[in-house]
Parts: sequence; C-alpha cells; structure tokens
Amino acid sequence: MLEHGGRLLRAAREYRIAPEKWLDLSTGISPRAWPVPVIPPRAWHRLPEDEDGLVEAACDYYGAPALLPVAGSQAAIQALPRLRPRSRVGVIAPGYAEHAHAWRQAGHAVECVPVAHLLDAIDEFDVVTLIHPNNPGGETFTRDALLALHARLQARGGWLVVDEAFIDATPGHSLCPDTSREGLVVLRSVGKFFGMAGARAGFVCASPALLDAMRERLGPWTLTGPTRWALVQAFADTGWQASQRDWLHESSAKLAETLVRHELAPTAGTAFFQWRCDARAAALHAALCRRGILTRLFEAPASLRFGLPGEDAGFERLEAALADIHARGEVQ
Amino acid sequence: MLEHGGRLLRAAREYRIAPEKWLDLSTGISPRAWPVPVIPPRAWHRLPEDEDGLVEAACDYYGAPALLPVAGSQAAIQALPRLRPRSRVGVIAPGYAEHAHAWRQAGHAVECVPVAHLLDAIDEFDVVTLIHPNNPGGETFTRDALLALHARLQARGGWLVVDEAFIDATPGHSLCPDTSREGLVVLRSVGKFFGMAGARAGFVCASPALLDAMRERLGPWTLTGPTRWALVQAFADTGWQASQRDWLHESSAKLAETLVRHELAPTAGTAFFQWRCDARAAALHAALCRRGILTRLFEAPASLRFGLPGEDAGFERLEAALADIHARGEVQ
Repeated sequence: MLEHGGRLLRAAREYRIAPEKWLDLSTGISPRAWPVPVIPPRAWHRLPEDEDGLVEAACDYYGAPALLPVAGSQAAIQALPRLRPRSRVGVIAPGYAEHAHAWRQAGHAVECVPVAHLLDAIDEFDVVTLIHPNNPGGETFTRDALLALHARLQARGGWLVVDEAFIDATPGHSLCPDTSREGLVVLRSVGKFFGMAGARAGFVCASPALLDAMRERLGPWTLTGPTRWALVQAFADTGWQASQRDWLHESSAKLAETLVRHELAPTAGTAFFQWRCDARAAALHAALCRRGILTRLFEAPASLRFGLPGEDAGFERLEAALADIHARGEVQ
Repeated sequence: MLEHGGRLLRAAREYRIAPEKWLDLSTGISPRAWPVPVIPPRAWHRLPEDEDGLVEAACDYYGAPALLPVAGSQAAIQALPRLRPRSRVGVIAPGYAEHAHAWRQAGHAVECVPVAHLLDAIDEFDVVTLIHPNNPGGETFTRDALLALHARLQARGGWLVVDEAFIDATPGHSLCPDTSREGLVVLRSVGKFFGMAGARAGFVCASPALLDAMRERLGPWTLTGPTRWALVQAFADTGWQASQRDWLHESSAKLAETLVRHELAPTAGTAFFQWRCDARAAALHAALCRRGILTRLFEAPASLRFGLPGEDAGFERLEAALADIHARGEVQ
C-alpha cells in the first residue's frame, strides 16, 4: 500500500509543533465544506438501501446516464484493474500515484506517460488512465481530444479512464454525460468539492455492463447510511454548490496572487490548489514547516502544491511566512 | 452478488402496506441502538486517520491482541478468500450465504457442511468457516472444540474462520483473545450489537501477517470519519454495553416466551433472534406479512427467524397477530 495521510502528524513530531496549530495546505480538499446536518438515527441503525434516492440525485448532479456509488474514488481505482485481462496501461505522469500502483498490483503492464506524450503514444496502450484536471500539474484537455482518444482505444476494446476528482468547479469539462459509451469510465469524488473526505464517497460513471461487473466485485453496502443520507441533501443543495464554485475560483486566484507577490508564481493550478515547480521546493517546504504551514512536496519534478487556506487568517499567515522566509534569505 | 435488503420494500409493495407501517423482524440487528451523538464537522471533512484511537479502543472492547477495521464484516468475507491459493473450504450450513458465495467467487472448492458434521469432516478441508453462534441455527461450540479444530487445520497450513457477528451478548465465548495464533481468523461486526448496521464497520482479528495482507488488499480509508469517531465513543461506553447485553437477553427470552405461548416454540435462538423450524414456515410468513410483520423466511430447512421487537408495542403487535392467525385457522 502506498503511503497516505499521517503527514500532518509526522510533520508535527518532526517540527515539534502541535497538530492543531498547523495550517494544513497539503491536501486538495476544499477547506470550505458543505455543512452536514444532524444525521437521522435510522441512517445509523438500518442497513443502507439502494432505493434511497442517492443514485438519482447523483445522476442529476453529475449529468451521468448511469453510475455506481463507491466508497471513495480510491475504491474504484483499486477495483477497475481487476475487471480486465492483462493489458498495456498508460498512466498520466506525474499524477495521483494510486492509479499506476493499482494497475501494477493487478498484474498489468504499466507505463507512466508524461502528459505531453499521452495523446501521441496511444496506440501502445489498451487502457489510458488520466486525471482531469491533472493533479498536481493542473493540465486540462478538450472534450473533443478526450473523446477522440476514447474512440481510438475503444475501437480495439480498450478503456479510457478519467479521474475527475478536481473537476467540480468547472463541471462543463466533465465527460460524465458521455459515459454511456462502452469503455469510457469517469471517476468522481465527493471529498474535494464538498469538503467531505471523511464521508468516503465517490461515483463511477460508465456503461451498465461495466457498472454491473464493478457492483459484483465490490459487494453490497459500500457506503454508510449517514453518508448516503447526507449526500442526497448535498446533491440537492444547488445554491450551496454555486456559491462553492465561486468561492473556490476566488480563493484559488487569491492564492495564486499571494504566490506571485512572493516570487513564487504558480506553474499551474486548478480551483482547488496551485502548483509551483521549483528547484528549491524541498527547502521551501521545510521553511514553511518551521512556521507550522504544511504544503505537499513532490520530488519529481521538484515542486510544491499549495491547497487553499480556508479563511483570511490562513492567507495572512501564509503571506507573513513567505515574507519572513524571503526577508531572512532562508531559501536561496 | 447475492440478494440483500430491499425485502421490506418488496413486501410493502406485495402486501400493499406502506413501508413505515411494518414491524420489521427480518434482521438480526438490535432494535435498541447506541445513541450516536452529533458528529464533529472535522470527522466529515478530513480524510480518516489511522492514529485516531479506534484500533486501541476496539482491541480493548474485543480483547484482541491485534485487529483491522473493515467496512463491515462483509468486506472481510469478500477479501479473505483472495488471500489464499485454491483451497478446499468447508462452510457451515445453513448459515449466512455470503461466506460460501465469496469463497466460490474466488475459485475455491466449497462444500456446505451441516453443523453436526463440521467437526468430523475436518480432514477434508484446508479452511473451515463457521458462524458462532450460528445464524439462523443458533448453534454454539465450546472454546476447546474450536481451538482443537483450529490446531488441526493450522498444522497443515489451514485456517479456521469464525464469524462472531452475534457473539457480543456472550463475549466470554469469543475467540478474539486467541487470534495471535496463525490461521485463526475472527470476524466481528458492529452492526448487530450496537444497532449500527448503517455505519458499515467490522473488525478482523488475526495474526499480524494476515492483517497486513488484508490491509494491502483493502487499501486505505475503508471506514468513514464519522463511523470511526462514533465507534471510539461507543467502545468506551461500557455502561451502555452492559445494559445492552441485559436488554438483549431479556428481550430474546421474552420473544421465545411469546412464540411458545402460540405453539411456535423456537428450535433455537441467540440473544439477537429466535428461530423456528416449521413445515408451515412459508404460510406463517405470509400470514404475518398480511398483518404488516416481516420475518425472515428460509426454505431449507423450512424455517422462520424472528428478530427482536424493539418496544412493548412491537411485542403486543406480534402477540395479537399470532393469536389472530391461530383463531382464524389461517395456518394449518
């Protein structure tokens, strides 16, 4: 299993700063979260039921003709490779490492392909897995390019798998409405946009046959009753969703401006984070840690991902830290 | 996938009685449930973390040296068969059907073995899977008999898998404290005793090597943040646990007395349900359905399982229905 989480607790130990004192910018989860109401006791008590309206509410929100609720897109990432015979799989790089790991674990021949070559190298692969927009690189693709890619793969029985975990702020870019096409699989995540990573919920949008195979593989009751109940409400809360999209775009723009002011202009970004390629990434990461600010460090390419500070105080703290690091010449 | 749930909704349609008007005795889930407090927002917001005290609280409650939280014992039932090469597997019969199904799905040679022959036929199997106490038969085993069975299996690299979903009211019978022994796997469920089937939580107690293999197979974040937070509190609530054990024993005894009064003396039972083998089971099930009472019908052997009515009103309704069925001579 790849390493996950615990980064904040490790940083807290290493830098001797209590966990609750950190500004955690190390995730792509929106710090502004949908406010979950009090859960009705029956949602805890009874076995979750498929007929509770969740699938219909999710189809509406995602614009998908059919989908399967799963325990986070992670559950789908792990299950998908088990639904195909041994294949040649191209995975976007750099990107969320669980994709390549899961295909390898299931015995496929996996190659990590830089975004720039992904559309060219297509005839070498049976399956292409990409993240849209990409994480951490922020790369985007046009709908036409992705559907053309899918058509070429599908013509020989291949799949295009698109992880849209960070697409909710730009929903017009989603391929969910196209997923009745055989071999087109879109993964959606509830954690980032709704700020509900603890709910462990995601959705697979794909053809009915593939959804059936995945349903059989994952078994019954993959989501909890409280998560199902909360999501039915969250998907219906279109007013909050609109305000959240605005808030994400504004906060991400403000974060980019903050970085620019401190000569750390982002290399790329999405509504959920900004990403800076920088040879000094490790030193900058450490200097921020010494000030109780946790970012996400990538080694190849050397880079830092900054999640959104949730409140003005968070922006001010980041601003002050970057100014102080610069003033002291801590990172050359 | 085997059929699950939806029985109440189907019965509601078939008998034209609104779902909320039914007395649902079709599950083994305690109708008296641990009262879940309001969930702190951060449990919904953040990714669940392994270091939240859940494992320690669960080890205390189960008396297990080591364990792995899983998304309901169902998740463990599905994963276990994938951790062994093709084996000869004996599964207790009749019993919860998912066990045999999961081993078959994973390509093992599965034989369903009546309880009476389970301890004799042992040399024919590499793995024995049983439910203790059994569901629906209520059979119990002595600790010595189970440990002897395990020793014989383990001597040739086999496993004994014990599903203890219904053991919480008689915790002294559990093998959890013995699970540091290689090849002894105990599954525990939170749903039945705590009345939290919607929380999708269970625990696998086994040797560290087997837990590692299962952790790798299941991947990260298998439980939600709200479920983890609630369970830490529930496991610490020893006062409620003691009162729940008393309540279950009293309610189950009262249920047995009710059935005896109506010439339906239970064939067997546990603290969670009573079970009646009866050639008229199907007719009795239908007669109860016509009165809005749902029991669980088994075809082989023809039998009915009665879960606990939660309140006095439930007992009175069952009592009145059985009296009426008898008075009208509806079930001969």
